[in-house]
Amino acid sequence: MKIAIYGYGNLGKGVENAIAKNSDMTLVAVFTRRDPASLKISSENVPVVSVDDILKWKDDVDVLIICGGSATDLPEMTPYLAKNFNVVDSYDNHSQISKHFANVDKEALAGKTTALISCGWDPGMFSLNRLYANAVLPDGSDYTFWGKGVSQGHSDAIRRIEGVIDARQYTVPVEEAIERVRSGETPDFTARDKHTRECFVVAEEGADKEKIREAIVTMPAYFEPYNTTVTFITMDEMKKYHSELPHGGSVIRTGKTGKNDSHNHVIEYKLTLDSNPEFTGSVLTAFARAVYRMAQRGDCGCKCVFDVAPVDLSATDRSELIAHLL
Amino acid sequence: MKIAIYGYGNLGKGVENAIAKNSDMTLVAVFTRRDPASLKISSENVPVVSVDDILKWKDDVDVLIICGGSATDLPEMTPYLAKNFNVVDSYDNHSQISKHFANVDKEALAGKTTALISCGWDPGMFSLNRLYANAVLPDGSDYTFWGKGVSQGHSDAIRRIEGVIDARQYTVPVEEAIERVRSGETPDFTARDKHTRECFVVAEEGADKEKIREAIVTMPAYFEPYNTTVTFITMDEMKKYHSELPHGGSVIRTGKTGKNDSHNHVIEYKLTLDSNPEFTGSVLTAFARAVYRMAQRGDCGCKCVFDVAPVDLSATDRSELIAHLL
Repeated sequence: MKIAIYGYGNLGKGVENAIAKNSDMTLVAVFTRRDPASLKISSENVPVVSVDDILKWKDDVDVLIICGGSATDLPEMTPYLAKNFNVVDSYDNHSQISKHFANVDKEALAGKTTALISCGWDPGMFSLNRLYANAVLPDGSDYTFWGKGVSQGHSDAIRRIEGVIDARQYTVPVEEAIERVRSGETPDFTARDKHTRECFVVAEEGADKEKIREAIVTMPAYFEPYNTTVTFITMDEMKKYHSELPHGGSVIRTGKTGKNDSHNHVIEYKLTLDSNPEFTGSVLTAFARAVYRMAQRGDCGCKCVFDVAPVDLSATDRSELIAHLL
Repeated sequence: MKIAIYGYGNLGKGVENAIAKNSDMTLVAVFTRRDPASLKISSENVPVVSVDDILKWKDDVDVLIICGGSATDLPEMTPYLAKNFNVVDSYDNHSQISKHFANVDKEALAGKTTALISCGWDPGMFSLNRLYANAVLPDGSDYTFWGKGVSQGHSDAIRRIEGVIDARQYTVPVEEAIERVRSGETPDFTARDKHTRECFVVAEEGADKEKIREAIVTMPAYFEPYNTTVTFITMDEMKKYHSELPHGGSVIRTGKTGKNDSHNHVIEYKLTLDSNPEFTGSVLTAFARAVYRMAQRGDCGCKCVFDVAPVDLSATDRSELIAHLL
């Protein structure tokens, strides 16, 4: 199947790598808002095309994987592109998903395309595990822990403080909180109980470090509700120790069954990822296969990971899966 | 939806408990091979019916959950019942699943019913996690660890030894092996590397305990390939400390992405279950909901967990799931 990538940042590169791992897929084009001549991609013999020319590719792309940002790109991009292409996006603004879903659904139905939104690991694989665990244990409690991993949004927030040259923020789950949940307890946690925030900051020469620290730890919503540590480092240390984008986390559901609810069960799904964008790109790519198959069956409109039968994600024959993976 | 249970052992009781946790389901009958008058079930006002009369219930049961054993019951029961009912079973003989699938498919297609086989946690939830993880990380390695938990088959094997009154066998995963896999190593394990077997045995008075121990640890396939410990206890201790049926385990996939495969990822799905039959019953019940919906859409034939879109497992509206669980 012919796959194209729209947007060539970290996520687009992750998708490019993932496509190379799937022998039933070919990367046919990378679309960019930049000057195509200025963009060098890893894949050989794959054209880099201006987004202005994308409609010319309508018949040559089976699925378009949209690798834009959730804040401003995807709410515009995905509905627009879904009119003409089968698409997958990674829209991750949880509170606005229903609105995005409705916008994309309208265009996909009009264009008779299949569009899958909010794919990745959260939303995405974590959502799937929340749904399965809730269906199996209706009487229970859900917990999600994130990290240890780099939060781009929190890193950006620190970079906007006066005197800061660069910053990296790690979200770290509180191990004691995870252990309480794993043991079957159902605590009501505050934000502070569940996660701490570790910040590594490169300051301008002569900057007031105590003032920067104070600006970080008192920042509402981003840092104030958490126990936050701030460590000042050099630019060399930043490049040497903090250039990667690891992430991960756990979705845990505990639930009761049996007479007098005497039996407890713990379902945990845990990800430990060296590269957030490469793993997210791998998830998008697997779901692109399902979108292709759903589109071939005429199953149009907006979809999410909940709508996809797992068999459609695999390059392997159903009979092989039943014989060897079931 | 109207659910019936076929077979009232530990698993049937687990399903009965699970149905009570799902307000969109009603238990309408329990079918038994025993004399119905001799069977007292937990639910009030639910008829206990002889299996000989089951065809009379054809129009009054939406989904029949078959709670028989995999060794001899299900290969006969499920095809026979699928001719007339939408069914779910927990067939767990991995090497024979394709054959069972074909037998059930033929009858379900002839009867225009929907039949879902090999549901539970392994096969079942573990299979799903193997499939998702393989689709997302095509370049990787799979590991499954079981336990700590009671293996009925191994317990039964010990009970057949002369001089043994009762026995309980726990399968225990080797923690060092799990840690190696979690760290991203991809070892080739022997059976002995991955699991140990802990046996608790009540012997007849005057029995030769050393002979019993030797018979256990040298038993081919069951115990010989493992490090096995045997502890003799009294019947009182057996009842007090070993009357429960806990189980669980982990499905782990590790895989590589990125340039030069420099990034490693670990996906782990872990279950810690106080009661194996109650959790298995809970999984069967959630999938019974999906079978009902697939049958209503005319999606006939034999299915497995891979064929079920997750949205069909939930009692909650799709729009609610998208708004709150995605």
